[in-house]
Amino acid sequence: VPQEPTSPRPWERLSSTRLDALPLLTPRIDRMRNPRTGDALDRLVLESPDWVNVVAITGGDDLVCVRQFRFGTGAVELEIPAGIVDEGEDHLEAAQRELYEETGYAAGAWSPLGATAPNPAFLENTCHHWLATGVSLTGEPSLDRGEDIAVELVALAEVPRLVSGGVLRHALVLSALARVLDLRPAPEPPPI
Amino acid sequence: VPQEPTSPRPWERLSSTRLDALPLLTPRIDRMRNPRTGDALDRLVLESPDWVNVVAITGGDDLVCVRQFRFGTGAVELEIPAGIVDEGEDHLEAAQRELYEETGYAAGAWSPLGATAPNPAFLENTCHHWLATGVSLTGEPSLDRGEDIAVELVALAEVPRLVSGGVLRHALVLSALARVLDLRPAPEPPPI
Repeated sequence: VPQEPTSPRPWERLSSTRLDALPLLTPRIDRMRNPRTGDALDRLVLESPDWVNVVAITGGDDLVCVRQFRFGTGAVELEIPAGIVDEGEDHLEAAQRELYEETGYAAGAWSPLGATAPNPAFLENTCHHWLATGVSLTGEPSLDRGEDIAVELVALAEVPRLVSGGVLRHALVLSALARVLDLRPAPEPPPI
Repeated sequence: VPQEPTSPRPWERLSSTRLDALPLLTPRIDRMRNPRTGDALDRLVLESPDWVNVVAITGGDDLVCVRQFRFGTGAVELEIPAGIVDEGEDHLEAAQRELYEETGYAAGAWSPLGATAPNPAFLENTCHHWLATGVSLTGEPSLDRGEDIAVELVALAEVPRLVSGGVLRHALVLSALARVLDLRPAPEPPPI
């Protein structure tokens, strides 16, 4: 996809102010100049380490899911295991660690599914998606004080229905699953 | 998917502090109690109106895309038209308005593709996905002072390749497209 001569140019950053650091995200205000109009505008950027999530499938074709209360939606959500890439860690290590810490599942065959920008408008970081097939329960989950997570197995064949029904609804979960499954709802059966 | 007796409970919000409002997102710090451990923890929530994005397809099977500089990634990104649902607006109106304002494309047949939680961990809101088929160029884009956008048509058949190549990489774009297309890369051709 070639860039046209009219393709938008990068904006110039005029200044940058960090707000108080939080455990996972550091808000920063950037003053940016719009090259089209010359206007200077303040925009929020959230600094964050990269993230990982894992499509982990058992030998019995179950997807390993986690259920936890989420502070944004204020609801208990069904998702796939995910977390933050620690400093000095590579993202495969992070994916394997998060799967094991959150669920107790491990081993299997691992392959990369590519990466997503969680939200280019205000997040700097990348979410790396991993596929782990043939995983099995090898230990106990070990949750930190910021977590309260239940493990739940979902038949892989049920996943498209859970997506169209809005149960699996986290955009990063869907981005990972779309690399493994066709998420479109099955067509209606023909009338008899 | 029934909830198990061990399913995580909602956390209690102990207090809430709003930071300065920004154009699109209002950061808020919630002090939350973990029902599993009793620990109180500060967590960032971003208050935001709902969002919309549009899978708009021309009669010639081209996907209507937009290319713009994004403040989070600091890069010019290829995405589908998207924006914020204004107060008093329904999300179909917002989707039609954003498509027209950003690209000049309009009309066609509109159908809902469901909704996504952009990030349940720290975003309260929902992104509504819409499909518009048979759209055509009916006017000029009208950009506001915070925008600098170029329109680009992409053959629908090229989309899975652009996803696996990391060109289309915004998680909310992928969540919308996965409801219309099988995004998995085509299998390798068999050796001759």
